[in-house]
Amino acid sequence: MGVNGAIPKLPSKRGTYLRNCWYVAGWSDDLTDTPQAKVFLEEPVALFRDGDGVAMAIGGRCPHRFAALGDGSVIDGALACPYHGLRFDGSGVCIHNPHLGDPPPKASVPAYPLVERYRLLWIWMGDADKADTALIPNFAWLDDPAWEAVRGVTLAEGHYELYSDNILDLSHANFVHPALVASAFTQGERKFWQDETHAYSRYTQKNDYISPALAGVLGVEGRKQDFFGEVTWHAPATLFFDYRAGEPGTFVEDMKALLSLHAFTPETPDTTHYVWATSRDYKLGDTEFSEGLHAALSFAFEHEDLPVIRDAHRLMAGQDFWDLEPLVLNGDGGGVRARRLLNKMIKFEASNA
Amino acid sequence: MGVNGAIPKLPSKRGTYLRNCWYVAGWSDDLTDTPQAKVFLEEPVALFRDGDGVAMAIGGRCPHRFAALGDGSVIDGALACPYHGLRFDGSGVCIHNPHLGDPPPKASVPAYPLVERYRLLWIWMGDADKADTALIPNFAWLDDPAWEAVRGVTLAEGHYELYSDNILDLSHANFVHPALVASAFTQGERKFWQDETHAYSRYTQKNDYISPALAGVLGVEGRKQDFFGEVTWHAPATLFFDYRAGEPGTFVEDMKALLSLHAFTPETPDTTHYVWATSRDYKLGDTEFSEGLHAALSFAFEHEDLPVIRDAHRLMAGQDFWDLEPLVLNGDGGGVRARRLLNKMIKFEASNA
Amino acid sequence: MGVNGAIPKLPSKRGTYLRNCWYVAGWSDDLTDTPQAKVFLEEPVALFRDGDGVAMAIGGRCPHRFAALGDGSVIDGALACPYHGLRFDGSGVCIHNPHLGDPPPKASVPAYPLVERYRLLWIWMGDADKADTALIPNFAWLDDPAWEAVRGVTLAEGHYELYSDNILDLSHANFVHPALVASAFTQGERKFWQDETHAYSRYTQKNDYISPALAGVLGVEGRKQDFFGEVTWHAPATLFFDYRAGEPGTFVEDMKALLSLHAFTPETPDTTHYVWATSRDYKLGDTEFSEGLHAALSFAFEHEDLPVIRDAHRLMAGQDFWDLEPLVLNGDGGGVRARRLLNKMIKFEASNA
Repeated sequence: MGVNGAIPKLPSKRGTYLRNCWYVAGWSDDLTDTPQAKVFLEEPVALFRDGDGVAMAIGGRCPHRFAALGDGSVIDGALACPYHGLRFDGSGVCIHNPHLGDPPPKASVPAYPLVERYRLLWIWMGDADKADTALIPNFAWLDDPAWEAVRGVTLAEGHYELYSDNILDLSHANFVHPALVASAFTQGERKFWQDETHAYSRYTQKNDYISPALAGVLGVEGRKQDFFGEVTWHAPATLFFDYRAGEPGTFVEDMKALLSLHAFTPETPDTTHYVWATSRDYKLGDTEFSEGLHAALSFAFEHEDLPVIRDAHRLMAGQDFWDLEPLVLNGDGGGVRARRLLNKMIKFEASNA
Repeated sequence: MGVNGAIPKLPSKRGTYLRNCWYVAGWSDDLTDTPQAKVFLEEPVALFRDGDGVAMAIGGRCPHRFAALGDGSVIDGALACPYHGLRFDGSGVCIHNPHLGDPPPKASVPAYPLVERYRLLWIWMGDADKADTALIPNFAWLDDPAWEAVRGVTLAEGHYELYSDNILDLSHANFVHPALVASAFTQGERKFWQDETHAYSRYTQKNDYISPALAGVLGVEGRKQDFFGEVTWHAPATLFFDYRAGEPGTFVEDMKALLSLHAFTPETPDTTHYVWATSRDYKLGDTEFSEGLHAALSFAFEHEDLPVIRDAHRLMAGQDFWDLEPLVLNGDGGGVRARRLLNKMIKFEASNA
Repeated sequence: MGVNGAIPKLPSKRGTYLRNCWYVAGWSDDLTDTPQAKVFLEEPVALFRDGDGVAMAIGGRCPHRFAALGDGSVIDGALACPYHGLRFDGSGVCIHNPHLGDPPPKASVPAYPLVERYRLLWIWMGDADKADTALIPNFAWLDDPAWEAVRGVTLAEGHYELYSDNILDLSHANFVHPALVASAFTQGERKFWQDETHAYSRYTQKNDYISPALAGVLGVEGRKQDFFGEVTWHAPATLFFDYRAGEPGTFVEDMKALLSLHAFTPETPDTTHYVWATSRDYKLGDTEFSEGLHAALSFAFEHEDLPVIRDAHRLMAGQDFWDLEPLVLNGDGGGVRARRLLNKMIKFEASNA
């Protein structure tokens, strides 16, 4: 679904993306009996549940007359095209042709490996033979009953890497989110590092005020805390944010934690699917608290982050990020590592294709 | 008038259309004393009635400062530019210049042959010398008092040939229009043929239920019928749909009929003027019946057909239909014939220009 | 601010503009403690007031992560980026970096000479060394207490030269503005001339009715008047309209006058900042009169001129004005001079760059 509630206008010249990797395709719960028409990496995808309720992802453009398969319906476990009723199973093969005398045509759409894990749908947009579920990043806390999450999904204008940058540089919180201002983000100790497919940003600060909003959420209003924040970027664009605070001198593992997911999946070069969650292991079942937290986070992401990033994206006017010679600051250690890693992985994939 | 109620944004690189042919420019009744600014085949056109009330079509862009002539007004039978008042007669010649001392400039805009017939405006976008009114398809039932029509016009997103395809393949009704589901469309006998400028699709089915909605319209709820449906495509994009049903064993000519017009005139490569009507020869003057029928058909065309075709158009991302190697099914016999004929006619016209 | 209340989508291929000249950047009063994000000549600009309240204009795209600086805030007299808090002074130099351990980066954005004069902000988009405030056109009446102005600003679709053309050819009033119809505009004596950086249109008519609306504004309903109207175009797109009327036989200098500003500053090739004012030297302090005049003029510019020019712009489909071979009428003497002068100035500037 594009910004206007329909298929977005697709560029005729395609961009290049990392394909042999897992992207978040949405929340598992949101995929009901009703299929979904999506675009990932400028490619139409239909999501549906087959006769056993198993989530499937196949090419979203019917090979007959190019209708959006995801706008169809599931019949006998197969996805029926909304236009002329050809049915495709989860492997993308046309298994039923409702028209007089015609056998099912020797036709198929791509099948994308799709896995439901941690209440998320994970899609593999590359070579299916290489799809290894062991490569799915660990977000076990999302379906751990000891943790309760508020969750959201939105379609955001702007290139997906700009959204990864945003999370990897927590310092933006001090400027973009008035309720989250804390000197830890700009003056705390920072550490950035990487491995083959991850980039990390860690912020720590001892004995200082955390932000008003987070103090309220953690129930430590007016008390100085030790602060710990660590972001893990999983290539290409799925991020884990481990935020913790505790009385001064508390070991990190004993601090109270808020765990967050920020997953960015490109729709087009200009639009990004943004799937997020923040989880706690206290006040479980406190609906009022959850609703307040959900409202605060939605507002922060959709009305504070998004306009800033959308306008930065527009000001880039379609030019390459590095060609614009961005100034690199201390806080960019995570984002720059992620961009370089991703660029390297995309080049490596292209050279081995 | 574009999608936003104004001149649409026009591509700087023009597409190719069949020009020596009649396109439907709208309903005759809708052209009142107020001129209209339209775009047909990416070309601005002004429609107006001259001093005798005769409908005229001339180039819609003033040669002076490029204002939309169709947003002007008629003065002394000529169309006055809304910007600086130059007046053009129905032959496109500037006949009046309101400015001091200036004679009418030796200027003109194109004149397009325009004919009012069958309550429709027919426009010829090609060589005026070749405009032969005998080539206007016969829709005499539209102004035959024995028939009463409900009529509509809308601007639809999507290439005009996609809209012709839709009507020529009636099987879509079984999937796109829940109220029109009938096995005749998918399981009935089909026949497709063509001549030099027409393509035909015929569907017949004996002794079966026609759809709930059509049974209601024809007053044969719950009774099996013999069914006859024939679509005639007149190049480039004007279609006649002759739908009939009767008690089993009835000759086609004795069946009760609903006659429909579906005319598609390209505005831009991405937008299409959709002019439609459905006529009956019973319940004449029954306003309530007419209003219900109009509402049902508008809904079907604008809220069921249009979103499917719009999304198919977007998923084609500006690529050529045949380059996308569409799967051809039994039901495409009409559409494929129409596309091939039109393509041949366009090439022939180009090679003789 | 673009049409949608955000940064407009910028073309990746830039157009050519006259740069060594003053453009109107807006009303001085409208620039409060809140900075503004603007785009002039396809170039992002941030406007803000420094610690002394002096209006400043610097490059509007942060060199760090490309956020819109004009959406930031002023802290200690410098403009702080809304994204990560880098602060830039009015010379465009980064003077503060809020992040741990980092000195201010050796970074800057362009600084644009900006002058507050006549209640307007004037910006110089070219070589700062050449910015000579003596080149600012004289609009002293805008801050002369003997004159009271109604003022406005809007963002208009269409190329800025089309908007200059509109004012230079007053004859459009007879067709576009029903309340301003007067035969002086089409039948009055016209004179057009130019000098190195100005083009002029003058309309005079003796002993005739001025329009109903203007007769009302001047308080001469039903009385024939001598009429004088002179438009001065200051390159590249700032226009002064001196409108006067008086009892037949009155010397021009003794007539009652309405003085107007029409300033057009390109935002993109398709959008224009339109800043306007109309001033009188009578009924000073009459709020009701001012409000009526403001409403009438806003309506005329935004609902009468703009749709005509927007549609003309769209009908030009991105093509060059002269390539379209416009018909030149008597009334175009001012506009054609302005276009030729501007074209010559742009070429001269390019050849000396």
